[in-house]
Amino acid sequence: MKEKAFQDYYPEILSHCYGCGRLNEHGHQIKSRWDGEESVATYIPKEYHTAIPGFVYGGLIASLIDCHSTGTAAAAAYRAEGREMDTDPPFRFVTGSLHVDYLRPTPIDAPLELRGRVKEIKGRKIVVESTLSAKGEICAKGEVVAVQMPDSMLPKV
Amino acid sequence: MKEKAFQDYYPEILSHCYGCGRLNEHGHQIKSRWDGEESVATYIPKEYHTAIPGFVYGGLIASLIDCHSTGTAAAAAYRAEGREMDTDPPFRFVTGSLHVDYLRPTPIDAPLELRGRVKEIKGRKIVVESTLSAKGEICAKGEVVAVQMPDSMLPKV
Repeated sequence: MKEKAFQDYYPEILSHCYGCGRLNEHGHQIKSRWDGEESVATYIPKEYHTAIPGFVYGGLIASLIDCHSTGTAAAAAYRAEGREMDTDPPFRFVTGSLHVDYLRPTPIDAPLELRGRVKEIKGRKIVVESTLSAKGEICAKGEVVAVQMPDSMLPKV
Repeated sequence: MKEKAFQDYYPEILSHCYGCGRLNEHGHQIKSRWDGEESVATYIPKEYHTAIPGFVYGGLIASLIDCHSTGTAAAAAYRAEGREMDTDPPFRFVTGSLHVDYLRPTPIDAPLELRGRVKEIKGRKIVVESTLSAKGEICAKGEVVAVQMPDSMLPKV
C-alpha cells in the first residue's frame, strides 16, 4: 500500500481546493509524496485539458506546479520540525508567487510527473522548485514562493 | 452588440484550448477585447473553483492570466501591423513564461476582471502585464512572455 499523500493529511475544511482537495469532486485531486529529498506526484491529463490539439494546456501545468509545490512546502515545514503531518500546530501554505517556464510543448497522451525540491526555508516563506515531465523529458519548470497561511484566511468553523 | 472577442477570430483548429477555446465545452472560454490601450475580460468563477472556502483557487487565476495575456499578445501583433485579426498571415502565441504575484485572497462570490497591457514587443516575443481584480481590488498581478507559435506546434490539417 502506498503511504498517505501530503494532501490526505489536510483537515476536512482545507480539503476543497480545486487543485489538490480530496473532497473537491470537480478538481484535480493531486497526491504528492516524498521520494527522498524530492516530492513527487503524477497526474493524467484529461483529453479536454488541451492547448492546441496534442498538447497540454499551460494553465493546467501552472495549476499542478502550484498545488504540488505548496503541498511540498507544508510537508517540508513538518519535516523541518521532525513532526508528522497530523500533529499540531498545523502548517498550511498559500501561494505568494508562481513562476513557470514552459520549455517545450507537453504531450497530452502521457502521465505528467511532478518533482519538487525545497530551495529555501525562510521564516513563514518556503521556496519550492518543481519540474513537470512527460515521456522522460522536462517540459516545464516552476518556482513557487509558498507562504504560511494568514489566520485571516482560515475558514471560521 | 459587443464587438467580436480576440478568441473568436482564432481558426477552428486553434479553438480547443481549455482556457480560451470557443469549442472546448469543458473549458473557461474567456473572451478578451480592447478597451483603449488595455485588454479586458471578465470571468465568473464556478463555486468549485475554490482554494479554501470563500476564495478563488490560484491555479484558475494563473490560467486566466495566461490565456488573457496570450490573447492580448496576438491582438497586439495584429494591431502593430494595422491589420484585422482575420487577415493573413495569422499570429498565434504560446506561453514562454508565466509569473503571478498573489497580492491578496480573491473572493469567489464576484466576477473577476482581467486587464492586460502590452509591456514590450520584441521580435517573436510579446510581454504582457495583466491584473486580476474582484470587487474593485487588484488581487493578483501577472506577467506573461508570449512567443509566436513555432510551426512545429501547428496542427497538421
